[in-house]
Amino acid sequence: MRDAYLIGAGQSDFGAFPDKSYLSLFRTAFENACESVSKEFDPVNVDEAYVGNLSIGGRQIGLPGPAATEHVGLHAIPSVRIENACAASGYGVRQAVQAVKSGMADVVLAGGTEVMNDLGDDRVRYWLGVSGEMEWERMAGTTFSGVFAQIASAHMAEYGTTREQLSHVAVKSHENGAKNPHAHLGHECSLEDAESAPTVADPLTLYHCCPMSDGAAVVLVASEEVIDEYDDDPIRIAGVGAASDGVGLFERNSYTAIPASETAVNQAYEDAGMGPDDIDFAEVHDCFSIAEIVAYEDLGFCERGEGGVFAERGATKLDGELPVNTSGGLKSKGHPIGATGASQVVEVFEQLHGRAGERQVENSQIALTHNIGGSGGAAVVHIFEKEGAA
Amino acid sequence: MRDAYLIGAGQSDFGAFPDKSYLSLFRTAFENACESVSKEFDPVNVDEAYVGNLSIGGRQIGLPGPAATEHVGLHAIPSVRIENACAASGYGVRQAVQAVKSGMADVVLAGGTEVMNDLGDDRVRYWLGVSGEMEWERMAGTTFSGVFAQIASAHMAEYGTTREQLSHVAVKSHENGAKNPHAHLGHECSLEDAESAPTVADPLTLYHCCPMSDGAAVVLVASEEVIDEYDDDPIRIAGVGAASDGVGLFERNSYTAIPASETAVNQAYEDAGMGPDDIDFAEVHDCFSIAEIVAYEDLGFCERGEGGVFAERGATKLDGELPVNTSGGLKSKGHPIGATGASQVVEVFEQLHGRAGERQVENSQIALTHNIGGSGGAAVVHIFEKEGAA
Repeated sequence: MRDAYLIGAGQSDFGAFPDKSYLSLFRTAFENACESVSKEFDPVNVDEAYVGNLSIGGRQIGLPGPAATEHVGLHAIPSVRIENACAASGYGVRQAVQAVKSGMADVVLAGGTEVMNDLGDDRVRYWLGVSGEMEWERMAGTTFSGVFAQIASAHMAEYGTTREQLSHVAVKSHENGAKNPHAHLGHECSLEDAESAPTVADPLTLYHCCPMSDGAAVVLVASEEVIDEYDDDPIRIAGVGAASDGVGLFERNSYTAIPASETAVNQAYEDAGMGPDDIDFAEVHDCFSIAEIVAYEDLGFCERGEGGVFAERGATKLDGELPVNTSGGLKSKGHPIGATGASQVVEVFEQLHGRAGERQVENSQIALTHNIGGSGGAAVVHIFEKEGAA
Repeated sequence: MRDAYLIGAGQSDFGAFPDKSYLSLFRTAFENACESVSKEFDPVNVDEAYVGNLSIGGRQIGLPGPAATEHVGLHAIPSVRIENACAASGYGVRQAVQAVKSGMADVVLAGGTEVMNDLGDDRVRYWLGVSGEMEWERMAGTTFSGVFAQIASAHMAEYGTTREQLSHVAVKSHENGAKNPHAHLGHECSLEDAESAPTVADPLTLYHCCPMSDGAAVVLVASEEVIDEYDDDPIRIAGVGAASDGVGLFERNSYTAIPASETAVNQAYEDAGMGPDDIDFAEVHDCFSIAEIVAYEDLGFCERGEGGVFAERGATKLDGELPVNTSGGLKSKGHPIGATGASQVVEVFEQLHGRAGERQVENSQIALTHNIGGSGGAAVVHIFEKEGAA
């Protein structure tokens, strides 16, 4: 198995762009990714492509992969849509690594694009609902906010986690997102703002929930055979892990953990020969603030049940011991379903190349991304290492 | 790159099953695939899965991959939806081969499942429409029948192809499908039936169009390292090719060829070190009879423009020089979008193992499958070789 490297990554702005096409957003992300490559990059070298998309918005339901890649001039290459709800392009990145390792491709595009705000609220809720478990959760009237409210309630009951701790996560996310020019909600929020916001699904307030965003992100992965053509100081994709679980919360063994995340991260740690102590910073899946707290625990960043305290004492702030979601995360940067996983990798790329501006984490060389689909029916984890940076 | 082998393949009946779930159809296909393996097969050995689905039918829009694999007891493995419209599970088979070649997996499931008949006609037409090119073709009122009618008209004008030649394809498909117990339309049809059927989109009559089907198919692919555990007389996946093109017919260089098919098949021939003369039989994408005639030409089975004559003189009949669509093809066996590509491989598996009953092609060892998405926005080709059968 040959090694795979991250050679480029870019994204569009995330926000509410009901008048934009999933194609134009993809083009912006693609152009930014191509420009991000350290040496000259000719798109004609892209061998194949994986495009994450849930097709919310009634646009191109079938064949959005070829439609997107042909639109940016990547003509005739194998191109396919990858879908695992919110983990679509995280899985896309895994496919890119696999394509490189297989020897079938040297340069692979993994990206995602989503337009969600061109539909009225009822329609968006419908699409989001059908990404949850359909036959029981959705038919019983539960939404994703409701499912994560159940997770939050269970975590509070079992470990004494508080709503204020959830708010600390939100405050930190917005603090970082305010430094990210691509963020959907790029403003700061106070603890008071988060606490006093309207309740969406008790105990979650508006500031404990990510927004509905439009946007695109693109990542470029290359093989060790060609890496010298693109980067003298490359980022190796050191570990990959992926797992599934029952799509419904009620099908799982635990309400206070995401078992698929645990399985995926353990694979990734084993693949990389690393553990949580090796990680310098991480982008984790915080569709709701409770999801970030559970992620701290699932990924081994803190002990089980201590995620709330970990957030509260500032461990995951930009200047903390393990910065998490320096991009602003899904909460502040935004969450255009199909683009989210690739966008996490954009942040890793910018950080490890020292291009993160005010958000820059100093002296970091190893990063982790964690992307889940639905409420944990799928999870995918990647570990990235800046070579020669030790 | 290590070799990948086809060790098992099975499908559900294809038909109109508005009362069946995409999950129960997938289970049937999965169980048939497991039973088809020559030696004992324990599903716990499946390392990862690719599930083709266009999600027509308003069922599980997000996460159908994990939902399907968890439903059949494949717990916690990486599982993801692959979508390229009608080429979804054909691309899934390619991902399975890639997963094996990458060394990340030893046994991989590629399948597809689709329920289309649980919706009223208008809704189905909507979903099918959005698999075509959305912004121009669909908005102008064109459907897939209309697009392939344009291809047929252009082929007739350029090469003198006749409607009767299209009908010969239909008669042959039904002749084969009548011998396939899984076929949706498992009855024979006469030349007169095909010619006199109502016009769908001139020059295409009802018998020149495939039906809207529900069903599922599952294929199991294994690495050379483990092949001895599953099969003493294995089928090697000797060649793989895939390509895209503009999703709209108007974006292509040709109305009388599918350029993506030509690119994909040339890759597959090169990968296998073979050419069209090596192929003993093939399953090609005949969503409309004209598509089969164009496929003969794109795949090099006959000269450009001679596809109609090739069909008329019976070259592709069961006892012809190059039997095509021995399963009955999309026309008679049926076309449940996400399952079609994998179902083509089911036919290859049964034929090469001598299990095709009345449809059996004698003395065959090399087969080709050809699966396109939409009207040619995506194409994927596989070549299979029964080892030691020479």
